Amino acid sequence: MEIKHVIKSQQFTPEILFDLFKRADELRKNSDEILKGKVLATLFYEPSTRTRLSFESAMLKMGGNIISTENAKEFSSAIKGESIEDSIRVISSYVDVIVLRHYEEGTAEKASKVSKVPIINAGDGKGQHPTQALLDVYTIYREIGRLDNLKIVMTGDLASGRTIRSLCYLLSKFKGNEIIFISPDSLKIGQDIKDYLLRKKVEFNEETDLNKILPEVDVIYMTRIQKERICSEDYEKSKGKYVINSDNLNLIKSNSIIMHPLPHVEEINLPIDIEENDKRVAYFRQAENGLYIRMALLDLILKD
Amino acid sequence: MEIKHVIKSQQFTPEILFDLFKRADELRKNSDEILKGKVLATLFYEPSTRTRLSFESAMLKMGGNIISTENAKEFSSAIKGESIEDSIRVISSYVDVIVLRHYEEGTAEKASKVSKVPIINAGDGKGQHPTQALLDVYTIYREIGRLDNLKIVMTGDLASGRTIRSLCYLLSKFKGNEIIFISPDSLKIGQDIKDYLLRKKVEFNEETDLNKILPEVDVIYMTRIQKERICSEDYEKSKGKYVINSDNLNLIKSNSIIMHPLPHVEEINLPIDIEENDKRVAYFRQAENGLYIRMALLDLILKD
Amino acid sequence: MEIKHVIKSQQFTPEILFDLFKRADELRKNSDEILKGKVLATLFYEPSTRTRLSFESAMLKMGGNIISTENAKEFSSAIKGESIEDSIRVISSYVDVIVLRHYEEGTAEKASKVSKVPIINAGDGKGQHPTQALLDVYTIYREIGRLDNLKIVMTGDLASGRTIRSLCYLLSKFKGNEIIFISPDSLKIGQDIKDYLLRKKVEFNEETDLNKILPEVDVIYMTRIQKERICSEDYEKSKGKYVINSDNLNLIKSNSIIMHPLPHVEEINLPIDIEENDKRVAYFRQAENGLYIRMALLDLILKD
Repeated sequence: MEIKHVIKSQQFTPEILFDLFKRADELRKNSDEILKGKVLATLFYEPSTRTRLSFESAMLKMGGNIISTENAKEFSSAIKGESIEDSIRVISSYVDVIVLRHYEEGTAEKASKVSKVPIINAGDGKGQHPTQALLDVYTIYREIGRLDNLKIVMTGDLASGRTIRSLCYLLSKFKGNEIIFISPDSLKIGQDIKDYLLRKKVEFNEETDLNKILPEVDVIYMTRIQKERICSEDYEKSKGKYVINSDNLNLIKSNSIIMHPLPHVEEINLPIDIEENDKRVAYFRQAENGLYIRMALLDLILKD
Repeated sequence: MEIKHVIKSQQFTPEILFDLFKRADELRKNSDEILKGKVLATLFYEPSTRTRLSFESAMLKMGGNIISTENAKEFSSAIKGESIEDSIRVISSYVDVIVLRHYEEGTAEKASKVSKVPIINAGDGKGQHPTQALLDVYTIYREIGRLDNLKIVMTGDLASGRTIRSLCYLLSKFKGNEIIFISPDSLKIGQDIKDYLLRKKVEFNEETDLNKILPEVDVIYMTRIQKERICSEDYEKSKGKYVINSDNLNLIKSNSIIMHPLPHVEEINLPIDIEENDKRVAYFRQAENGLYIRMALLDLILKD
Repeated sequence: MEIKHVIKSQQFTPEILFDLFKRADELRKNSDEILKGKVLATLFYEPSTRTRLSFESAMLKMGGNIISTENAKEFSSAIKGESIEDSIRVISSYVDVIVLRHYEEGTAEKASKVSKVPIINAGDGKGQHPTQALLDVYTIYREIGRLDNLKIVMTGDLASGRTIRSLCYLLSKFKGNEIIFISPDSLKIGQDIKDYLLRKKVEFNEETDLNKILPEVDVIYMTRIQKERICSEDYEKSKGKYVINSDNLNLIKSNSIIMHPLPHVEEINLPIDIEENDKRVAYFRQAENGLYIRMALLDLILKD
């Protein structure tokens, strides 16, 4: 049940999840000096300002320190041909924990094999982004009050979104959940996820009409469609069909929530006053939850 | 009289200014642990190492912490099409204050509308750079002993320098000041500033001969002429006319000061021993004052 | 005997070296809060993630703070034409110590002439990298137990490696050492180093067959050959001749050590289990020693 490295969302049992949620709630109120004297390195081989800053702020708010590199690919010894293993061997002798973002799937696991200190995967290519999944389930739990017997629609780019993948893995750990996937034809959910859900006996469907589904679901999980990844014909067809705006907002139940890993572009198109005042708009609270769940995770991993 | 966000120099009343100067003088001597536990984010959409480092050092010297991004434009979610408002909404949930540098005028104000925490404008395009103006008046006050009844020449690129603009606004708050503008024809002070000074009843003139003016003024405020911004004919004409060097230094009164927002190039051309020993050379003390006035400002904004 | 700025390895007497080693050993065990309230700036005009991170971690582990810029060349006022002296004048008024990396030989010394605070040279072009030399001799001392009467082979790019240069200077301060240089013809050790060693009466030889030398030496100091710096004919000839691999490892004495400033590429080609378990592989311990010797150096320079 102990967590050393954080590589993929499947590592987290329901028991560890609820422990983390409780700790995150506590740290939200008071976090003084818990990690004093500890040093965290953010080692980012591709940029992700939001993820980097939230990990760094989490560490600082608990009294720890940070060293940071946000363009490790261009500027580190990688350009001299050094292996990721050697980079990790050296940097892990300088610090107490490494948060690693890399463009290649599997890098976090490679790193964990040689590191002297815990590795936290902050996204590895098309692989996973487990702390995003943690903040997602933490948000659902805080907002809806449970992680079982939920009806969730996931929409947008389901083919390559590691957020979707990691979240499906975590939801499979709880009973009675039903997932509805909606996406353009060329960005459909992968067969590997469908096989996983079948194996775990999680009910799921693929649908095409978002508005038909909206009144039925507890959670609307939106993701961004990258225009450049689909043909323009597909894009024109899907545009407007997979969007939350003033027109279809009223279809959503009053106690349901709209989530998004952010940044969002046109797939969410709501006026500012609704974004700020409508309780169903949960994605900014979701982003903030990322800070507290990462504090809880660092606490879990680094406490003596 | 309370300051939440720092967007433009006009916000500062003489009363707040003198409070800040007093606090800056105190913090110069002792600054221990005042902002312990607070986190500042520098969010720079264009580089400004000097400004960024002085804000970061100011925060650290008061016991606070920093998270930093100096190329937010290239590396943040901006490239994915996220609005500045959404970036600010998220980052303001991670930290206690945001120092924002942006290439577009008006961005700091936009950010302040949605931020949960104070925004400090560290330069927005052709707009303002209010903390530069604060360190400028703080320097004049420390060096000359007053902010009224001053005679000041401002020279160089007056057309686009936001330093000049912000300083004019602040000097207008005090009585009896007289400003002389000297610049190449194509880089003259804008009509909006002249209108502002007229409205505020501040005396001003446009002149062409720097050497004629030097013996009369208390402050020589130099700025850099960007070669690429004027035609080469204009540049050749102005070159040497708007320069402080060993030849015209003796025209300056012994208790006057030479200021410059730095970096300077050929518009100041003095031997090193004069730069280090002649008391009239104030621009390095001016840069150092930036550290202390920023400490005072952070203290004002963040103290509970 | 006092050190203010750290510019070149020749500054260090044996007495200071042994003091630093002792302090590094102590700081390895306990380093709490010694530099609390102090701020270090890393000012890097060319990237060196490893060196930067180890200085930053060293400072943080002693309770100090850091401000950091890893691409000063592109992003600082340098692109506006500011002299390095002016940049240093300003930044040295913000912080307590500056770690400077620059692409031009002699820059650290220039900087030290105008800085208000200590400058530490973290590599200046083809010049020196004195803290690398410090960690090298610290490693030899910890591993072999002495700095005199050693037989050392140095191989790889001897022509331009500032590591090699700085290490030769330091080894010259001790009696009875013998250095063997092995390199491709076009990357031979410079005449200036040979003259220096002659003057200091240090025995040295140039050889061509690494395997013949391996059984005789206490230290094998490998460096990387940059393919692009030699003609392909030379490279083909030297490839395999200047390599440590499973075939020639057995030629090395059981109490000798293999060192490398890292990153290494094909010049060291050993299986992972040997790299992790064979005590002769010293280069990862060598990298870690860099953290502790830099802590000792910062302590020496910054303690009141």
